[in-house]
Amino acid sequence: MSNIRHALTVKREDDFAKWYQEVISAADMAEESGVRGCMVFKPWGYGIWERVQRLMDDRIKEAGVQNCYFPLFIPLANFEREASHVDGFAKEMAVVTHHRLIADGKGGLIPDPEAKLEEPLVVRPTSETIIGDAMARWTQSWRDLPLMINQWANVVRWEMRTRMFLRTSEFLWQEGHTAHADKQEALEETHRALEMYRACVEEDLALPVIAGEKPENERFPGADETWSIEAMMQDGKALQAGTSHYLGTNFAKAAGIQYQDREGTQKFCHTTSWGTSTRMIGGVIMTHGDDDGLRVPPRIAPFQVVILPMLRDKPEDEATLAYCEQVRAGIAAQFSLGEKVRVLLDKTPGKASAKRWDWVRKGAPVVIEIGSRDMENGKVAAIRRDKLWNPETGKLANSFPQRDEFISGISDLLEDIQNSLYTEARDRRDANITRGVTEWSEVTEFYKSNGKYPGWIEVQWSKPSGAVLEKVVEQLKEEKLTIRNVPRDGDDADGTCIFTGEPAVERILIARAY
Amino acid sequence: MSNIRHALTVKREDDFAKWYQEVISAADMAEESGVRGCMVFKPWGYGIWERVQRLMDDRIKEAGVQNCYFPLFIPLANFEREASHVDGFAKEMAVVTHHRLIADGKGGLIPDPEAKLEEPLVVRPTSETIIGDAMARWTQSWRDLPLMINQWANVVRWEMRTRMFLRTSEFLWQEGHTAHADKQEALEETHRALEMYRACVEEDLALPVIAGEKPENERFPGADETWSIEAMMQDGKALQAGTSHYLGTNFAKAAGIQYQDREGTQKFCHTTSWGTSTRMIGGVIMTHGDDDGLRVPPRIAPFQVVILPMLRDKPEDEATLAYCEQVRAGIAAQFSLGEKVRVLLDKTPGKASAKRWDWVRKGAPVVIEIGSRDMENGKVAAIRRDKLWNPETGKLANSFPQRDEFISGISDLLEDIQNSLYTEARDRRDANITRGVTEWSEVTEFYKSNGKYPGWIEVQWSKPSGAVLEKVVEQLKEEKLTIRNVPRDGDDADGTCIFTGEPAVERILIARAY
Ligand SMILES: [Zn+2]
Ligand SMILES: [Zn+2]
Repeated sequence: MSNIRHALTVKREDDFAKWYQEVISAADMAEESGVRGCMVFKPWGYGIWERVQRLMDDRIKEAGVQNCYFPLFIPLANFEREASHVDGFAKEMAVVTHHRLIADGKGGLIPDPEAKLEEPLVVRPTSETIIGDAMARWTQSWRDLPLMINQWANVVRWEMRTRMFLRTSEFLWQEGHTAHADKQEALEETHRALEMYRACVEEDLALPVIAGEKPENERFPGADETWSIEAMMQDGKALQAGTSHYLGTNFAKAAGIQYQDREGTQKFCHTTSWGTSTRMIGGVIMTHGDDDGLRVPPRIAPFQVVILPMLRDKPEDEATLAYCEQVRAGIAAQFSLGEKVRVLLDKTPGKASAKRWDWVRKGAPVVIEIGSRDMENGKVAAIRRDKLWNPETGKLANSFPQRDEFISGISDLLEDIQNSLYTEARDRRDANITRGVTEWSEVTEFYKSNGKYPGWIEVQWSKPSGAVLEKVVEQLKEEKLTIRNVPRDGDDADGTCIFTGEPAVERILIARAY
Repeated sequence: MSNIRHALTVKREDDFAKWYQEVISAADMAEESGVRGCMVFKPWGYGIWERVQRLMDDRIKEAGVQNCYFPLFIPLANFEREASHVDGFAKEMAVVTHHRLIADGKGGLIPDPEAKLEEPLVVRPTSETIIGDAMARWTQSWRDLPLMINQWANVVRWEMRTRMFLRTSEFLWQEGHTAHADKQEALEETHRALEMYRACVEEDLALPVIAGEKPENERFPGADETWSIEAMMQDGKALQAGTSHYLGTNFAKAAGIQYQDREGTQKFCHTTSWGTSTRMIGGVIMTHGDDDGLRVPPRIAPFQVVILPMLRDKPEDEATLAYCEQVRAGIAAQFSLGEKVRVLLDKTPGKASAKRWDWVRKGAPVVIEIGSRDMENGKVAAIRRDKLWNPETGKLANSFPQRDEFISGISDLLEDIQNSLYTEARDRRDANITRGVTEWSEVTEFYKSNGKYPGWIEVQWSKPSGAVLEKVVEQLKEEKLTIRNVPRDGDDADGTCIFTGEPAVERILIARAY
């Protein structure tokens, strides 16, 4: 395989961080905007987000959750009211202080001192408090419950060190907020949202994840329980791809979310919140990308099949284009993975071979090239992006199916690619979780000797809290490690705690993380 | 009809502005947020916007335009560069000056003086300049053209007097921006976008509009041509529902959008931009609303059919619910207007009759009630919202179709409602455009004597410019009138100008407007 000439200049094994940046630019997904900490989502990157959004939104609506939209600006008072949350957001927020610009007399513009706001407004770092205010207004009686709302929006958390998709000052996300009559129902909703995330991220994004509860120190401020889904990147680090919180009545008490029960008694609601963001796209890149660029799982690919006509500026081009159009129409009429197949006939100028590599770098699941000879033979030349190279020859693994067979087989082909990307990632993930480690020295040794691809370790612990937990967190931090979660579907504990030596009560995953 | 007891407390004819507010609250579409100038989109209002967005987005994508996402914040320098645009936006913009909050020592929070931005950032009032910067980067060669991008986003223009959906400081919109090699292609795109808007607004929102070119004084700053679609509200005022601009090379020169043509010469692109916003929802309310609330055209209704089970806290409730679920599943399996029918079985607590009125006020196109007697007879009780009352009896115009016939007829029924809402609005609009007015005194007299429902007047003019046009605009302004547009599909001129007495060159529509 060493004689393969890959499409990127940086290989994952040589410099994973640099490779990540190169994928984003080579796949034409996004770029720096020139505005501090903010990125531009280009069509291919935004198109993937739109697909994720639509698939997630279908699941959200299916659960009876309703979308709303709340103001971009939040009064200072909302943050003052909930000091504990402000700590959580590190106070790094964009603050609007003026509502007008005027000329400074030197050809520039300045905020108009006459137009200073009496009270500054904060650009939402989350809409939690303002949605809480609304829920307090909307929840009067048990008849109003459960109240289940969601918002898709941009949010801003000022960041000094940014990384496209993973950490930017402005990012796109959804936040679900629900209010329930009792604890049981709110807990069920917390778990439903978590399971919805698991299903969407595994089935649609093809990212295998481990769902589980966060330890106390990693809980969202004000939450009684925080759950997450954790994905393993190709450098062995963990990426938290979504969280779901059971907030008890803490948040309801802060925001005044009350209801009158059937007996006429005023009670506080039990609330939940859950969120995912454009960060997931970073996870897609670091899970499915390879040394030739991105590989987009078919379900979230803006185009699943790209047709490239091989034209030669000759009269027969017209016939080739007509043949390509027939193939396009044939494929567009197929269904795969529950939707119409998304196919693009790319007629932009340029050589087919150069365009082929553009689409390989972008990671379109299937790329087909059609020249006049293919047309005469009633064939197409097809590449599946997830199996780009012939490992024996080191050459591109094209196949040359009959046109009609290819069209009728596209549904199965896309399903197969979706599954194979998932399976590949899952097998790699499973191969890189080390279990049965019982001594702390094994942990430090493991991360010393597995520098490039450390993976995760599962250990057992006694679930300490307070000062003991703080010490554990400190101990992990020295190795740049964090506790990811307590796997929901993991085995019971049967040993002793690796930190305290006490009898273990559960298993936890520890890892380096994004 | 006078003995009908309508569901709203305010009638259109008594106080249109107050009626408008009542529809919004009675239909549970939106509410004030407590944040100056910003509104909360509640599920029904946001659901309608989501429908509009999806239908418009399908049309945008169909034209080969690609969605992107650009930063919320725009550097001051972008506005300084284009002083003419700043005038256009009245400089009323939200300005971010700090990136951190700190405690003020008195239990409050203040912007941290240590975290003052070196250069303030503006919350986008439009993304025009930042998209221009990107287009300048992305357009190098004729091969990169046409470049056609669109953004769905929130924007902020500080407003002192706000009105929900029509004028709010923050609103939601889409802005399309395209760059072309030559004038001809850019003009074609300007007209394509206009026609796309016309089609979407007429076919999906059922708002009849008149597409035409704006006069010079109403042009977007920097545009060579500005086109609009204008809808007539039930108070006879005009609402501009979308605009499309041909910007010549003006914008390309300001932003440096150049390309190398096939001969290797550097040229400026010809650009266009076009936009629509949540304002359209205000147009839907003021066009289709009646004294019982909103009437949502089926294509943009989040739910097209709502089923209300009539339960009596008795054992037979279970059978009634099962029957309702059969009806729901039957309807959900139908297609209408090119999509699966969106049906809700509303099982929330409460009396069916109270819930019926909630859905009437919300304007769900079809509401059906099912009780145990209906079940025994294999029937349903159906209301179509666009024909709510029996004009002879003054009672609700329910019908009692057989279940299976109702289910198989739902597709036609929804199509019929969509068409009938459009036809009703178009007939009203057409009846309220007065043509053949040749004297200015007739205009002033007309608006004096038609106070409640002034409608529009079509007149002929000589298309003056400069100082003469300014005088015309002033003359109109005294009567609170504006020129809406020069209808694209109107008749040629054949008379004299009502303002200058010179030979007329075209016909214009004048009206009071939102
Ligand atoms: Zn809170
Ligand atoms: Zn401009």
